Amino acid sequence: MYNYLIKIEYDGTKFVGWQCQQNGKTVQGEIEKSIKKILKQKTKIVGAGRTDKGVHAKGQYANFKVKKKINDTKKFLASLNHFLKKKLISIIYLKRKNINFHARFLANERIYKYRIINRESNLALENNKAWHIKKKLDINLLKKGAKILEGKHDFSTFRASSCVSKSPVKTLSFVKVTKNQDTITITFKSKSFLQNQVRSMVGCLGHLAKKKWNLINFKKILKSKNRSLCAPPAPACGLYLEDVKY
Amino acid sequence: MYNYLIKIEYDGTKFVGWQCQQNGKTVQGEIEKSIKKILKQKTKIVGAGRTDKGVHAKGQYANFKVKKKINDTKKFLASLNHFLKKKLISIIYLKRKNINFHARFLANERIYKYRIINRESNLALENNKAWHIKKKLDINLLKKGAKILEGKHDFSTFRASSCVSKSPVKTLSFVKVTKNQDTITITFKSKSFLQNQVRSMVGCLGHLAKKKWNLINFKKILKSKNRSLCAPPAPACGLYLEDVKY
Repeated sequence: MYNYLIKIEYDGTKFVGWQCQQNGKTVQGEIEKSIKKILKQKTKIVGAGRTDKGVHAKGQYANFKVKKKINDTKKFLASLNHFLKKKLISIIYLKRKNINFHARFLANERIYKYRIINRESNLALENNKAWHIKKKLDINLLKKGAKILEGKHDFSTFRASSCVSKSPVKTLSFVKVTKNQDTITITFKSKSFLQNQVRSMVGCLGHLAKKKWNLINFKKILKSKNRSLCAPPAPACGLYLEDVKY
Repeated sequence: MYNYLIKIEYDGTKFVGWQCQQNGKTVQGEIEKSIKKILKQKTKIVGAGRTDKGVHAKGQYANFKVKKKINDTKKFLASLNHFLKKKLISIIYLKRKNINFHARFLANERIYKYRIINRESNLALENNKAWHIKKKLDINLLKKGAKILEGKHDFSTFRASSCVSKSPVKTLSFVKVTKNQDTITITFKSKSFLQNQVRSMVGCLGHLAKKKWNLINFKKILKSKNRSLCAPPAPACGLYLEDVKY
């Protein structure tokens, strides 16, 4: 068997998510179909992160195993992109890895970015590519809230009820807020995340920055480990799986 | 009469251009239709720049005159954006100007940006938002070419045959190339541009950076004032009317 790693970019707008399911087009499904067209065999790919409906990726990773070595990897990649281009999926590169490599289990760090555009007028160029918030946000409160989330915590407050992770305790090694004109970007780094964790945290940070909550409320809600106190998760269209480190 | 200035952002992908014409949807046409819905009167808007089919804008400007004062400008703007949202047009702001203000004739500087993504794999997140060039570009040659274009020149080489400008002599006050990972941005500033000038210049800069031409050829082609020597214009999807200064 031969084991290959691919790095993938996609526009998540028209997909029901990364992972194969019954009810619509998935990124995994489209890539598997395209590989089948080229290699004439059913091939299962394993993704590093299961992004939800509407979530984008600049750096998703997946591996797949095949019986026959892919000799001309450049040609294979070009064919794959030929089939995927119209689906707004792009395979950035293909690399051979040793047989034990696993895109999900061996990831050391996942980096997500969340983009907010904070202005009165609707989004034209960034439609479906950011969370549009009209109300003026307090960037300093946002930064303070981000700092509170950093470190090792029980993140039960921000965990979807369907999450299958063994433990709600995770270590957020890095949370940073940057602002460039009306665009606010929040970067999150962790070895792994709970299901819906980033969007749930951003939803709460949004409440804070809109001054619906103060910092004391915000801390309380994190510490409560109570999902029902969480703000509505931020929309999927602002979230990007930016990169994964192995 | 009352005279108003609007700042406009739009995704040009699905428009046949800024200016009203017979054969399809235009940005000007959609805005005029929406103003008519609100004010119940036919209103003509004058744009600062007539962007072509597929060209985007982050900062287009236009003015329009109405007989009755718009009392609640905030409400007017919200209604306008309500109608334009789905068309991927956004009115950033509305300002009252004196009666002689003219968005086209009084512009002191127009700023265009051209975005290139230079990588092997196709574009997913930036589809229709940049020129995808697979061949590795020489960024230093690109910068040297940009420098040559700066200043006062007869730009006939880069002028569309349908251009109605009085003179082909223009002064490019600023041309700058920046690179961030695989994204190259070229910024152009001038009081005014010839029709197709930016895309024609970028097409030639592309030939240079792909090493189809050397710097001597590039200079010769600028000096030739001969349109037939120009490289094919760069695609519309990479071009953005970034801002206009008054």
